[in-house]
Amino acid sequence: MPTGCAMDQPPQAASANTDIRNCSADPPYLPPTAINTTARLAALRGTMRAHSVHAYIVPSTDAHMSEYIAERDSRLGWLTGFTGSAGTVVVTWDKAALWTDSRYWIQAERQLDCNWELQRTTWIKSIGLWILEAVPVGANISLDPFLFSIDTWNSYSQALHGSGRTLLPIETNLVDQVWGDQRPPPASSEIYSLPAAFTGSSWQEKVAGIRQQMEQHVRRPTAVLLSGLEETAWLFNLRGNDIPYNPVFYSYTLLTNTSISLFVDETRLAAAALQSLQAGCPGPLCVELQEYGQARAHLRRYAQGNVTVWLGTEYTTYGLYGVIPQEKLLEDSYSPVMLAKAVKNAKEQELLRAAHVRDAVAVIQYLLWLEKMVPQGQVDEFSGARHIDMLRQAQEHNRGPSFQSISASGLNAALAHYSPSNRSSRKLSVDEMYLSDTGGQYLDGTTDITRTMHWGVPTPLQKEAYTRVLMGNIDLSRLIFPPNTAGRVVESFARRALWNVGLNYGHGTGHGIGNFLSVHEWPVGFQSNNVPLMAGMFTSIEPGYYRDGEFGIRIEDVALVVEAQTKKPFLTFEVVSLVPYDRNLIDLSLLSPEQIQYLNAYYETIRVRVGPELQRQRLEEEYRWLQRNTEPFPLGSATTATATLGTLVLASLLSALLTGLQA
Amino acid sequence: MPTGCAMDQPPQAASANTDIRNCSADPPYLPPTAINTTARLAALRGTMRAHSVHAYIVPSTDAHMSEYIAERDSRLGWLTGFTGSAGTVVVTWDKAALWTDSRYWIQAERQLDCNWELQRTTWIKSIGLWILEAVPVGANISLDPFLFSIDTWNSYSQALHGSGRTLLPIETNLVDQVWGDQRPPPASSEIYSLPAAFTGSSWQEKVAGIRQQMEQHVRRPTAVLLSGLEETAWLFNLRGNDIPYNPVFYSYTLLTNTSISLFVDETRLAAAALQSLQAGCPGPLCVELQEYGQARAHLRRYAQGNVTVWLGTEYTTYGLYGVIPQEKLLEDSYSPVMLAKAVKNAKEQELLRAAHVRDAVAVIQYLLWLEKMVPQGQVDEFSGARHIDMLRQAQEHNRGPSFQSISASGLNAALAHYSPSNRSSRKLSVDEMYLSDTGGQYLDGTTDITRTMHWGVPTPLQKEAYTRVLMGNIDLSRLIFPPNTAGRVVESFARRALWNVGLNYGHGTGHGIGNFLSVHEWPVGFQSNNVPLMAGMFTSIEPGYYRDGEFGIRIEDVALVVEAQTKKPFLTFEVVSLVPYDRNLIDLSLLSPEQIQYLNAYYETIRVRVGPELQRQRLEEEYRWLQRNTEPFPLGSATTATATLGTLVLASLLSALLTGLQA
Repeated sequence: MPTGCAMDQPPQAASANTDIRNCSADPPYLPPTAINTTARLAALRGTMRAHSVHAYIVPSTDAHMSEYIAERDSRLGWLTGFTGSAGTVVVTWDKAALWTDSRYWIQAERQLDCNWELQRTTWIKSIGLWILEAVPVGANISLDPFLFSIDTWNSYSQALHGSGRTLLPIETNLVDQVWGDQRPPPASSEIYSLPAAFTGSSWQEKVAGIRQQMEQHVRRPTAVLLSGLEETAWLFNLRGNDIPYNPVFYSYTLLTNTSISLFVDETRLAAAALQSLQAGCPGPLCVELQEYGQARAHLRRYAQGNVTVWLGTEYTTYGLYGVIPQEKLLEDSYSPVMLAKAVKNAKEQELLRAAHVRDAVAVIQYLLWLEKMVPQGQVDEFSGARHIDMLRQAQEHNRGPSFQSISASGLNAALAHYSPSNRSSRKLSVDEMYLSDTGGQYLDGTTDITRTMHWGVPTPLQKEAYTRVLMGNIDLSRLIFPPNTAGRVVESFARRALWNVGLNYGHGTGHGIGNFLSVHEWPVGFQSNNVPLMAGMFTSIEPGYYRDGEFGIRIEDVALVVEAQTKKPFLTFEVVSLVPYDRNLIDLSLLSPEQIQYLNAYYETIRVRVGPELQRQRLEEEYRWLQRNTEPFPLGSATTATATLGTLVLASLLSALLTGLQA
Repeated sequence: MPTGCAMDQPPQAASANTDIRNCSADPPYLPPTAINTTARLAALRGTMRAHSVHAYIVPSTDAHMSEYIAERDSRLGWLTGFTGSAGTVVVTWDKAALWTDSRYWIQAERQLDCNWELQRTTWIKSIGLWILEAVPVGANISLDPFLFSIDTWNSYSQALHGSGRTLLPIETNLVDQVWGDQRPPPASSEIYSLPAAFTGSSWQEKVAGIRQQMEQHVRRPTAVLLSGLEETAWLFNLRGNDIPYNPVFYSYTLLTNTSISLFVDETRLAAAALQSLQAGCPGPLCVELQEYGQARAHLRRYAQGNVTVWLGTEYTTYGLYGVIPQEKLLEDSYSPVMLAKAVKNAKEQELLRAAHVRDAVAVIQYLLWLEKMVPQGQVDEFSGARHIDMLRQAQEHNRGPSFQSISASGLNAALAHYSPSNRSSRKLSVDEMYLSDTGGQYLDGTTDITRTMHWGVPTPLQKEAYTRVLMGNIDLSRLIFPPNTAGRVVESFARRALWNVGLNYGHGTGHGIGNFLSVHEWPVGFQSNNVPLMAGMFTSIEPGYYRDGEFGIRIEDVALVVEAQTKKPFLTFEVVSLVPYDRNLIDLSLLSPEQIQYLNAYYETIRVRVGPELQRQRLEEEYRWLQRNTEPFPLGSATTATATLGTLVLASLLSALLTGLQA
């Protein structure tokens, strides 16, 4: 599933985009999916006036910079009606606007009412410029400091710097005030330990590794602050259910050189989890449990001592950061825990590979099922999504989907993050392309795979676009590159085949992924704020092509960064997603011999790894489907054609000659 | 000529590198090229102690962040003996170290004495870590604020942040104090106007364009501060000779919405230049001349008013920046003048193209001359460099070389920036590769081209490496990409053919270039601090491969960013350097049919553009050489081979048949 593009540069004018909404008509035209937000906005503006706030910024995230959030934290969604996973809202006394990236533009048009401008970028500088035009000199621009990372805070601060407006953090969240009793309650489900069979190392080993890094750092930090939910979950091998699709739980951790404080609702911990955490008490490997709400106060007290606190500025909030004196901070983009988590050890790699084999079984079952059912007109987007979810659920160790299944037919696939609902679901047809972007949570790993298909006769454009997206996927997957290469300098290889004919896509090319954790796992990926690629990291590779109102294509695999077979230890990818592509959509004449060779080798790997599992699960029809769909492609069809042409001329000459002689 | 790589990431350990110097031997071994710096260092340390400075940072640049500098500003060179164009020095009471990038590692080993550690990186964070280990808490770390850009200052400030050491600017330059009377005097040569035939527009038009940008900016800046020497030279169509190879002169400009202040030594202005600048006096297009040394005081006074000063943080010094109150600053990486200069208008493009045609004539003369002279053992690196300089000098509008000619044979070419001297110059031979990286200043444009050649039998490795470097040059040159693409996300295309076999190069892939200005012109290029590529920009494309102690390869062309022939207005490159590559070093079997097609099209362009000029200059032998060396390559030799094999079988069958029948 694609992430948005980090916007380092000003966006291109989206001139071709005409909004579905027609707010200048009388009465305004709105799609039926739009939500009426007039009353909510009026209430918020009342609160803003009471606090002398002229502009209020609301992000889509929670206090842990989570991408997926609990309903309770969906302030932006409640205020606007927009349910996309990324966006920023600014409300002034007379204006309101939403900024989001291209994955969500059409969705936003369908969900926003006419109270909202849609701004097609996520560039903070442009939000800043909009605010400068919307509010006068002297105005207060406010936000909740616990919902903005240090880096984002700094970007706003810089965008408004010297403008005569004040950026003013307010600890009371104004949306929550208005939301009131209607706001959902906090999570209360159990937090449990992951069985040892599914962990790469014990939490004590992980803690020891981080402490070693602290000791070896020239600044000698005395503590690491963890505010990302995945950090705490990974470090202690704990999981929960607080956030849909992500098995994490609300928590903070302050890991010092002598103590460990875990801020969490203690009553929610399973008995075994509690025992594991406190087995080393008292001592340096004893986890002291503290209330979730006490993290900030505790940190403030801790920071009064002779200490140095190490934290990640990409996702620690300004609200926490602000209680630590500047000289006691050790700032990096990501904490050492985030970086340790990103490089999977041998056992974690094996676990993720194994999860992908079972995941391939479910996807192959789905593709075969579609092949049979779609021509009968029996499947719509929603029932398709339910079916793949059910197939995954039947696989061993599955714990549900890793994100809301994207199941999009025809023009709906032009929305990169479209998900069908029971109300509005398009029927799948042999006359349209279909895009399925789904993933599973398994105790041993998280998966994410996209396949696009056509069961009838694709148009030449569809076939060419699909083939070029595939070429991009292949070109990046088979790239050999030096260690420590940043993803952003190689992701263009996934775009070049499209660029060649003036095509492109507007989302990121890939993202890290966890071991039974988030499907979008930082800090791995191909964007400017990702860390360099290292052996042991997993990333998705997912180029696409989208044609508004017509169709959408994406081909996504998860790949492990491995050492290449070069003299110097360069790196390359090992694709661990194991499902063949749609042969009906591949124009073989566009592929180079090297690309075909790669494809054939990949298909051989699929046969070797997935074939036996299909047989073990007695899925004979699926096994035969797999054999059919992984037949090697003829190598160098173009070369063959030329040779044939040459030989044909001579052959007919020979034939004519023989005929003449025989006559 | 390559620039260093912007080091966003920590450097790889240069473990394979063993220093030529052996400082632990008794007595230490030093190459004869090393300079004894003991006395200079002792004097500097005396001054440091007098100022209570524990560590003093000395950069390689001047007060305008120039890459090339006048002797008078070569503080780092005087102090260390190292003459490379990029480096940073830190001296403490008992240690001294030089940081430089991989272009200069071997050169530094040959020039530094044992007083100096060589640090093989330019990453400021690593300089900071070294300082933290070298000086105690409480120490003062000092620098001259007029020799550090705002951005660099901030990086040091951040690297030392919270460490208990103080970063302390001292306006007196401590090296200058020690250098004393021996320091060369300031420049005194004439500053002159460029004839209108060689300018893209009048200086008044340029000023009007910048003022329009100021008016349209939401922050409404009242002034633009120009501290880059090229900015003032370009804006006023003036040139000088203050810095070797770069026709610029010491100056600052403060361009306000109502006035223009040019800070320069007025006595050096040619009469016509003075007249041009003051033709509009009094009025908004009158240039007021002020003393060069008054820039800071004037700026300080100006900044007391109700003003906003727009400046580029990449190259404005902290010394100037510091006199402007924060709220009166409008900071961008580059000033609008820098950006306007980077996008050449149609006339400037034509001028640069024309300069490259004459430049190609000189280079072709040189290549033919080498072909004849080298087998006779008549050429060494130094005489070769003098010969190409002389050939260029004979071309119309030439004003000398655009940088010190790099002329490197055999293992010397492994030093990317090696220049021969009369003392140490290797003889060119048919048994070694030879690398020539040279460029010219012409009134109509600046050129920069690298060709590598072999007149005998190259080794298989040399041939493969050369071919892969060429493939990289071709792959980037023919890339089609969307508008506003950052250079750093496409430069890997120049590396992939090398990466594929575990090879790479340690320098940048290209840099902007001026119209009779700098050969390395900011902010165009392929690094992280370059601006996105736009039609009208010129950049070099120069992949390479270097094998320590054996050989070096680089293939460099200058290319113009142009619109591609795609439906959407995507971009691509038009190569304007017009000299064929060495056929003796190309392994055609490695090239794809697309690469060969590209090469043949490029050669056809060379014939069309350079052929007539060679004939006009009556260089008939060179004309024939050009025809020979631009013969089209057979397309798809692999394909042809297959076809031939197929047809051969049938043909012999036919032949046998005919023979049999005739018998």
